[in-house]
Amino acid sequence: MQFATYRLCMTICALTLAPVGASLQAHSPGLPAASHANLEREFDSSIDRDEMRRWLRQMSSEPNQVGSPHDKANAEWELAQFRKFGWDAHIETFDVLYPTPIEAGVEILSAPTYRFTLQEPPIAGDTSATASQPALPAYLAYQGDGDVTAPVVYVNHGLQEDYAWLQRSGISVEGRIVLARYGGGFRGLILRLAQDHGAVGCLIYSDPAEDGYAVESVYPGGPARPSQGIQRGTVLDITRWVGDPLKPDGSATGKRLTLSESPVIMKIPALPVSYEDAQVLLKTFSGPVVPKQWRGALPLTYRAGPSQVPVHLRVKSAWGTKTLYDVVAMIRGSSQPDEWVLRGNHRDAWVFGAEDPLSGQVVLLEEAKAIGRLARGGWHPRRTLVYLSWDGEEAGLMGSTEWASAHAAELKQKAVMYVNSDNNDRGFLSAGGSPDLEHLLNEVANDVTDPETQVSVGQRLRAKMEVDGAAKGVSQEAKANATLAIDARHDFPIQALGSGSDFSAYLEHLGVPALNVEFGEEGGGSRGVYHSRYDTFEHYDRFGDPGFAYSAVLAKFVGRVILRTADADLPPQRATNFAEAVRRYLGAAKQLEADQHSASATQARMLASNAFRLAADSNLQSGNPPVAPAMPPIDFTALDDAVNRLEVSAKSYDATFTKRAASLDAVARARLRHLMLTIDETLAPTQGLPGRPWFKNLIYAPGRYTGYETKTLPGITEAIEEQSSADAAAYVHFTAEALNAYRERLEEAIALLKAH
Amino acid sequence: MQFATYRLCMTICALTLAPVGASLQAHSPGLPAASHANLEREFDSSIDRDEMRRWLRQMSSEPNQVGSPHDKANAEWELAQFRKFGWDAHIETFDVLYPTPIEAGVEILSAPTYRFTLQEPPIAGDTSATASQPALPAYLAYQGDGDVTAPVVYVNHGLQEDYAWLQRSGISVEGRIVLARYGGGFRGLILRLAQDHGAVGCLIYSDPAEDGYAVESVYPGGPARPSQGIQRGTVLDITRWVGDPLKPDGSATGKRLTLSESPVIMKIPALPVSYEDAQVLLKTFSGPVVPKQWRGALPLTYRAGPSQVPVHLRVKSAWGTKTLYDVVAMIRGSSQPDEWVLRGNHRDAWVFGAEDPLSGQVVLLEEAKAIGRLARGGWHPRRTLVYLSWDGEEAGLMGSTEWASAHAAELKQKAVMYVNSDNNDRGFLSAGGSPDLEHLLNEVANDVTDPETQVSVGQRLRAKMEVDGAAKGVSQEAKANATLAIDARHDFPIQALGSGSDFSAYLEHLGVPALNVEFGEEGGGSRGVYHSRYDTFEHYDRFGDPGFAYSAVLAKFVGRVILRTADADLPPQRATNFAEAVRRYLGAAKQLEADQHSASATQARMLASNAFRLAADSNLQSGNPPVAPAMPPIDFTALDDAVNRLEVSAKSYDATFTKRAASLDAVARARLRHLMLTIDETLAPTQGLPGRPWFKNLIYAPGRYTGYETKTLPGITEAIEEQSSADAAAYVHFTAEALNAYRERLEEAIALLKAH
Repeated sequence: MQFATYRLCMTICALTLAPVGASLQAHSPGLPAASHANLEREFDSSIDRDEMRRWLRQMSSEPNQVGSPHDKANAEWELAQFRKFGWDAHIETFDVLYPTPIEAGVEILSAPTYRFTLQEPPIAGDTSATASQPALPAYLAYQGDGDVTAPVVYVNHGLQEDYAWLQRSGISVEGRIVLARYGGGFRGLILRLAQDHGAVGCLIYSDPAEDGYAVESVYPGGPARPSQGIQRGTVLDITRWVGDPLKPDGSATGKRLTLSESPVIMKIPALPVSYEDAQVLLKTFSGPVVPKQWRGALPLTYRAGPSQVPVHLRVKSAWGTKTLYDVVAMIRGSSQPDEWVLRGNHRDAWVFGAEDPLSGQVVLLEEAKAIGRLARGGWHPRRTLVYLSWDGEEAGLMGSTEWASAHAAELKQKAVMYVNSDNNDRGFLSAGGSPDLEHLLNEVANDVTDPETQVSVGQRLRAKMEVDGAAKGVSQEAKANATLAIDARHDFPIQALGSGSDFSAYLEHLGVPALNVEFGEEGGGSRGVYHSRYDTFEHYDRFGDPGFAYSAVLAKFVGRVILRTADADLPPQRATNFAEAVRRYLGAAKQLEADQHSASATQARMLASNAFRLAADSNLQSGNPPVAPAMPPIDFTALDDAVNRLEVSAKSYDATFTKRAASLDAVARARLRHLMLTIDETLAPTQGLPGRPWFKNLIYAPGRYTGYETKTLPGITEAIEEQSSADAAAYVHFTAEALNAYRERLEEAIALLKAH
Repeated sequence: MQFATYRLCMTICALTLAPVGASLQAHSPGLPAASHANLEREFDSSIDRDEMRRWLRQMSSEPNQVGSPHDKANAEWELAQFRKFGWDAHIETFDVLYPTPIEAGVEILSAPTYRFTLQEPPIAGDTSATASQPALPAYLAYQGDGDVTAPVVYVNHGLQEDYAWLQRSGISVEGRIVLARYGGGFRGLILRLAQDHGAVGCLIYSDPAEDGYAVESVYPGGPARPSQGIQRGTVLDITRWVGDPLKPDGSATGKRLTLSESPVIMKIPALPVSYEDAQVLLKTFSGPVVPKQWRGALPLTYRAGPSQVPVHLRVKSAWGTKTLYDVVAMIRGSSQPDEWVLRGNHRDAWVFGAEDPLSGQVVLLEEAKAIGRLARGGWHPRRTLVYLSWDGEEAGLMGSTEWASAHAAELKQKAVMYVNSDNNDRGFLSAGGSPDLEHLLNEVANDVTDPETQVSVGQRLRAKMEVDGAAKGVSQEAKANATLAIDARHDFPIQALGSGSDFSAYLEHLGVPALNVEFGEEGGGSRGVYHSRYDTFEHYDRFGDPGFAYSAVLAKFVGRVILRTADADLPPQRATNFAEAVRRYLGAAKQLEADQHSASATQARMLASNAFRLAADSNLQSGNPPVAPAMPPIDFTALDDAVNRLEVSAKSYDATFTKRAASLDAVARARLRHLMLTIDETLAPTQGLPGRPWFKNLIYAPGRYTGYETKTLPGITEAIEEQSSADAAAYVHFTAEALNAYRERLEEAIALLKAH
């Protein structure tokens, strides 16, 4: 009751009052509103679900891994399509280190011995049965090759806290093979931690609790992972740099490492395995029963091990180079040709890749077709559009990173934003990116209708954030998101971006603002074929997005982002959204520090009272956790000051912009655009993050110990986690300086706006 | 570091400063300290682990359900033992309604049909194979009998929130059989809610996630529940009254109901089943996939159902009476014969009952032996000791409740306290009861050594509370307990008692202070044979308490409680512990009210914004939850005042007692004892709880919708949960009055102490 009244009031107020803070503006700045609505309707009318379905069927009909004939054929076919659509298109190639499997085996050495399958059997009627080219077998690209025989230890998700429990339980992985299950952090982290702890090999399996029968019926009966499904993937340390593992500075002309020198290539052999095979192995385990949260859904007692019998693991790869084929298509801007709006999606897959990545790729192509038609109809974007079909993403964001390196100088000058997508499914909007583009995304989200509920995808997402935030035991972040999403005056928050798709080089290395947009999360176990031979057209057509309704939604969504940005002759940023986001990140960093102090004090007290040993089951080994001394308090003053000042300037910029931008003349608009075009680059100064200088952005990075998950204010946050006072002090300083530089640019823009 | 220094300081301070608040006193009041330490050592020297092991083997050699020859034989053997030990012993019998299974069947009606087992197969070498008498088959006592055929719906734990999800998912149980898994609330609640929702039958199974292979290797390989294990039990509504289901007021002479009139007897047929059988049934289910927290550990996709095929369920019982045999043994007090110290443990079991209850019963007998020896050696307790071996506990606390009813008037005059135990295993102290006895329990806990760690069982428990409270995501209560336990000046908190063992009639109906003491929680899945045919001597000897070390610990612990209370000529209570506990309970009630207001507002807001429907997967049915209007704020003033005044009086009583009790003469001591003997009865005035007047205690009761779990300040707490403003107001008043009466008694005692 209360809320309905409140919302009614807000609707009325919104009509009468000027927007405050991050409130919604009527329409994107610098855009001819009425005619643009017609343009977008025309764009929408070109979106053809059946066409995307046909393209997906064709593009996913054969294996598409880097180096496969069909991946190259898809590039050539796309090139022809772009040209047919009226784009100026070409293919750029890059040669990168890319290991290919030659031999692999996993065997339990008992009588009788048991040999792991390492390939999914074909399923009748499925592309897995109809394709003519061989599927890549079980493989983890950039593992270390080797031939080892050792007992196996179960390490849960293979994260730091898992090793802490093993250590307390007196179980070492040294000289042993680890068996980890997917579902914690990035798989490369599993391997890195395993080798850091002295393991000689690594197996990673897909537990049915994660994406198998526990979640839904298994394919082909349902969407979830069948017992023989295998999750392939890269294990490159993508938290140090991405792209060619032999080029640490990311440049085509910089230093080249040898294979053994590269710290991002793993040193021990590793393979992904199915849960059918893992179950046989886990049944041979002795040792203590694992903690409750380590249990999967296999019908057995999960024990840490070691396994009763040794396992023989061998992997051999050909460590040659492969050629990547990036398709680059452009439409030159009519009035601002040196301002580029970039849009990309990768094309390479582990096997057929119907969902990952081709479900996003056919949408990109459909957008390009619709834009081509608009252009043929006489429309010319003010800014230049660059559409990009990337190769080599699965190996470690290779195609997008190589291209970013090759064109770095030009991109730093010209890129307005990079818009990424990847796999796309039925469900909810999931949007992440630079917070100064949050408002743009909100506007678009309010204008695109969800086909299942007939409300806007923005409204549906707000409902989801509201319901998620009200659930029991959710994170502080989910609660904070709900609070923001409920407030109709406020833009709903978009996610901070970590890693895992092609935006990385743009956002984190070059400092170009980036967005990542996808739909999904409905249909239960539809991700159950992720990186397996069963990620096929038939699976996607039944479970991923039946009827391709959300392919159309993604096309309309990204299309609007692109068209509006392309046509506006004013900058797209909203500075208050950025300032508010940074305020939240700073709060989270301080909370992390406080929590760590408190945890450290609690641990010291419990060690002193011998509580850990006394509270443990005496029949089990359970040593004390290591002493965790608290680091001295961090002096946040410089950052507090920077955030306070940023907030003031951001509000001033947005207010001044709202008041005065419309009356700027063409010259002033160009100057304003020029100032704001590169404002996000101030957040990515040259020094980079501690120990990983390739990552320049001081606001976001993939976590060193989480991988996919974003760290905000990463220099500071990880310094707290790793108890490095020196790094904390240094990155409080660097981050404050970056924010000050951003703010100074805002002040220049304010001065410009006020002068006209 | 910090903590060690602090504790050292406390030790020194404790030697020099008078104790404050709930701090530790040197020794129980009114007890000749030095000679009593010798007495306790002598008591300890009689405790014989091998003897208890022999007794357990013998007592659990045949089935021991009510009415079985061996249960009666055990009573007669115990009677002889007590007499041999020098006790004045007799058997009291009670005839109660007690249904016995005649026929039962569960069958899946498909081709081919599948028939459930309903009995565990014997295991070679185990008592299940060597006993000569038949084991009681799968049975839920006081289910409703019937013969029904219907599809089955999976209802998770069968609690209120589970039905809320089913309702939102558009799944009704009306006219259907429900399948619930153990592990939520009391099994009688599962059945009550099932029939309240219109189900025609009920099956309850033991999911391996709860106590099967997910937890540990299964018996006989390990302690956990094998695939054919079945948990028998009562489904009487023990939250309305306990004891004979035809006697609602608990008295031998009061009103008698007919079978169909009794609201505590269930109306629909029900059976417990094994997970081997449940798995066959669950595999036939269609319908939506259940929420994550509903998943068990069976290797299948848990769906809500209904089952694809109907199930035929039939149960037929003989609804006759059975005779209960309570063994009552007494040693008359030398100087205070009309002050009784009661000690009980039940003897009846579902099958052999080695762990539940005979592990506790042999300890009780061992204590009686040791006390008998002390008496033969010339020691005579000041107060009267009453040792009690109960029958019929499993059916619904029958033996203890009937005896309490038969002797109610005498007990209300004479009972100092009732000390209960039940099953006992290796591990940590678990102590619950009246908070004014908390300090006594703490004293004893500090004096008994844990055999695994060689620290006191109290210190080990404090360590466990500390570690549990520091774990992620624990309850507020666990955190609060940890805070109390860490403070060495403060007694560690004991649990509030709900139901589930024989203290209920004493504490909750008569208002006699009660304690429940047991050890356990080590050994992982040692409870995996709970109420099954495999709860045998062999299982207990291997997994429950190998070497019977904790049988000896329990004997020494309870022995000290009994001996100290028996010999003190001053009251055992510490009033500040009670006042502090009530303060916490009041805080929890207010928090509950605040949480409910907040949840109600959130729900109203989400209903108004249609968030539930928008956030749901559109392919699944998902209706809105019902509107939950917030009740008007409760006026807690009367209770706040009562608790404030209670605190003042409690502190004053304890301080005055410490200062002056030692100098009281015999007459004054007797008068003080008389005042304090019945002080806890002030908390159990005549009106009883809303809708269940048998439960008189206004501080504790079993929850109407949790069963075993205690509700503190139950009249108020449940009024909040059930949104009854009238009950809330009434029970704020009644509870305040009860606390005022307790306080007035304290003030009388203070006046008495000050006068001497």
